[in-house]
Amino acid sequence: MEDGKAVRGRGGALLTDLYELTMAHGYWKLDMAAWEAVFFLSFRESPFGGDYCVACGLAPLIDFLEDFRFLPADLAYLDTLTGADGRRLFSAEFLEYLGALRLACDVDAVPEGTLAFAQEPLVRVRGPLLQAQLLETALMNVLSFQTLVATKAARVVGAAGDGSVLEFGLRRAQGMDGGLAASRAAYVGGCSATSNVLAGKLFGIPVRGTHAHSWVMSFADELAAFDAYARVMPNNCIFLVDTYDTEQGVSHAIQAARRLDALGHRLLGIRLDSGDLAALSTLARRMLDEAGLSDALIVASGDLDEREIERLKRRGARIDVWGVGTRLVTAFDQPALGSAYKLSALRGPTGQWHDTIKVSEQSIKTSLPGTLQTRRYWVGESPVGDIIFDERRGMAEPPEAVDDGGGVFRPPAGAVASDVLVPVYRGGHLVYRCPSIHDSRQSALDQVAHWRQRQTATGSEGAYPVGLERSLDRRKREMVLARGGGRP
Amino acid sequence: MEDGKAVRGRGGALLTDLYELTMAHGYWKLDMAAWEAVFFLSFRESPFGGDYCVACGLAPLIDFLEDFRFLPADLAYLDTLTGADGRRLFSAEFLEYLGALRLACDVDAVPEGTLAFAQEPLVRVRGPLLQAQLLETALMNVLSFQTLVATKAARVVGAAGDGSVLEFGLRRAQGMDGGLAASRAAYVGGCSATSNVLAGKLFGIPVRGTHAHSWVMSFADELAAFDAYARVMPNNCIFLVDTYDTEQGVSHAIQAARRLDALGHRLLGIRLDSGDLAALSTLARRMLDEAGLSDALIVASGDLDEREIERLKRRGARIDVWGVGTRLVTAFDQPALGSAYKLSALRGPTGQWHDTIKVSEQSIKTSLPGTLQTRRYWVGESPVGDIIFDERRGMAEPPEAVDDGGGVFRPPAGAVASDVLVPVYRGGHLVYRCPSIHDSRQSALDQVAHWRQRQTATGSEGAYPVGLERSLDRRKREMVLARGGGRP
Repeated sequence: MEDGKAVRGRGGALLTDLYELTMAHGYWKLDMAAWEAVFFLSFRESPFGGDYCVACGLAPLIDFLEDFRFLPADLAYLDTLTGADGRRLFSAEFLEYLGALRLACDVDAVPEGTLAFAQEPLVRVRGPLLQAQLLETALMNVLSFQTLVATKAARVVGAAGDGSVLEFGLRRAQGMDGGLAASRAAYVGGCSATSNVLAGKLFGIPVRGTHAHSWVMSFADELAAFDAYARVMPNNCIFLVDTYDTEQGVSHAIQAARRLDALGHRLLGIRLDSGDLAALSTLARRMLDEAGLSDALIVASGDLDEREIERLKRRGARIDVWGVGTRLVTAFDQPALGSAYKLSALRGPTGQWHDTIKVSEQSIKTSLPGTLQTRRYWVGESPVGDIIFDERRGMAEPPEAVDDGGGVFRPPAGAVASDVLVPVYRGGHLVYRCPSIHDSRQSALDQVAHWRQRQTATGSEGAYPVGLERSLDRRKREMVLARGGGRP
Repeated sequence: MEDGKAVRGRGGALLTDLYELTMAHGYWKLDMAAWEAVFFLSFRESPFGGDYCVACGLAPLIDFLEDFRFLPADLAYLDTLTGADGRRLFSAEFLEYLGALRLACDVDAVPEGTLAFAQEPLVRVRGPLLQAQLLETALMNVLSFQTLVATKAARVVGAAGDGSVLEFGLRRAQGMDGGLAASRAAYVGGCSATSNVLAGKLFGIPVRGTHAHSWVMSFADELAAFDAYARVMPNNCIFLVDTYDTEQGVSHAIQAARRLDALGHRLLGIRLDSGDLAALSTLARRMLDEAGLSDALIVASGDLDEREIERLKRRGARIDVWGVGTRLVTAFDQPALGSAYKLSALRGPTGQWHDTIKVSEQSIKTSLPGTLQTRRYWVGESPVGDIIFDERRGMAEPPEAVDDGGGVFRPPAGAVASDVLVPVYRGGHLVYRCPSIHDSRQSALDQVAHWRQRQTATGSEGAYPVGLERSLDRRKREMVLARGGGRP
């Protein structure tokens, strides 16, 4: 697996916020480093005004964890940091401890391509307090962004329906690896291909692309540019028709298609990149059909997202392939997932577990206590409801969950249950084998399709039930009233 | 310079859109690869509803260019790509050509930390058509994002006024290197420090951080948590006071400050992370002052950006340090810079230069012809206006520029002129020495300060003049009417 190239061998452990290290130093000094802690990462609300997320980023996260080390150069750097009095922030003994540190945590996570809902754990870390704390920043960085983009991609792919979606966003992404991560997540979320060649090489994602405006501008006129392209790459001809005037561009593409025919090739299609895409695609479709090119695809690009695609389809656009860039890879309308990584249980030298909670005036920011797991209930291939419960305390029978609005979910008779978090690490050893990126993508496509089917079937009353198991809900309420947890 | 670690040795040349390679193949087959081309990268509108950008990303771009190679594994991958007929997309001879390719371009760019305006070239590439084309995606990826974040940072720093701004965004960034790039750009744009330890190590940016909610939740109560932190890291105490109840948290911080005093240390400050930051900071300031802690800083964080900072300051917030994360590193309210890389001049075997232009129904998307340069005029340390001109044709005397609205700019008598693009590569050889990241940051701070001074001085009439040199403007209009350029 090459997903982890982005961080391999580059001192991954330093890719963290400083406060994780100062806290680690504190836990170490106070002999609390080995206390056993449970943390979980979740998001507070589904992004883009939607209902779900598509989990993504576990494979790159595993690469990060496999590579987690403080290298000598990292320690030398940390040794240079000073506090307000100009004295060292970290003691030599602590840095030595970091140098020898090897992860020994249990990690459970939602597999890539799996639906996840607000409040549910995306990943759970159980292990030495110091280690589980140190992982926070990297976990959030990798999983939040990739989940956000995979979710955006699933929405775009859903809007495109029978059309396919190509990810074209590299030039707009947050730097080189921002682009790689986005291409990967967009594919897991259901895109068919990417323009990003390195993502193609590293992840095995299909790559697509033909030519830009500059190609056309390098020739005497547009027809000459198309003819030249047809001559040199006859098996890859999708002509970009809007460099000067789109209608004329389509007409030139049709003329170039004749030359292609003579070479024994077919025109694959044309690409529209500006103007009124609904009107232009209808016009282009008619022109192509009349020219006997009804198999030529119409590709559209330019500031597209799921809402724009839906608008264009409502207006009768005849578009077969959607090239989506900026608004996908930056998750333009909500460029960050509101996620948090919270301590939920702790046991110290007494050996007693104590649940912990972060209270907030905003109910949505109040965290959950315990060793959290999500149990999903299925009828056939459709999920019918989720119950978040405390794995250590177990779930009361019959299972019952309550949501924030007081709604109650009881799994229907005959529903099959499965736990969403799967074991990834046990005692620091990898126990999970990542499915291929193609399988994760197929899983996302299937799950989203069943999800949408169920939504359609249940209609407006069909908000998917996600609730807290009744005893977990009670415990959370008690702890909120008591303002926080107790010392182990 | 270690900025380039993000891409070094990882087949940088493949980090491109596929169409750059198919076009390159086409130019090569048609014997156009060595034609001399001029491309330039510019943005169409200043982001965030503002007037300017702070250029950023040149140093990482240089690292990318220094490392630009097609490695054998890259060529082996390209050899696997096929077209619609299942046959190879790229010929063996072309792949061999790519393997031997070494950049021979001239590159001119705006130095990091320099103000730039819409339509102006951020970077200009002149060289073999094939090479200048191949650089497109990487140029846009690196410069657009870093310029966007540096610009956002400059706006946030401007809003913070005398307060300092810390960048806290790693967990919300687009993956690992997305986070590194964002931390770097935020510092160039004027932030004082970052929480990102690896950015501290790689770029020499100051790092800051103390503790999170989880620290507090790991102790019997908040006071015990603060006391413990004071004991183990007395020279780095900024207490996060909102885990349970902020007013009580401030009171606990004050009690812990007494313990610090006993250890011979001062409380550095407190951090507010939720709630009504204006009201809470006023309350906290009063409590701290009454406790004799008037030197303790108040740090605030939580969904901040320049607008929120301005709102809070208007409401009388007593905040000394602003921790800005999500909305800075994702450029939340406009997560992509609308930039483009356009062919502007070309000469083929005839030796004659031909200007080129990309026409669009949207005037803002119509590109400029020629070998573009920006001349900036200064009175004292303040820039007073910019003229975009064609360096090959030169500028008529006396200089005069017209803008889209028909406004005319004539540099005032005695104004000093300097050209904004500086030579970076000549014939593929690096001729530019990057200033330190600290110097670039200082340059940005100085330029933005003078800019703001001038804006204040000229008041509402003071839109900064940026226009096209009169003959360039005329040529552009003629070419728009004629729809495009001519063949070399």
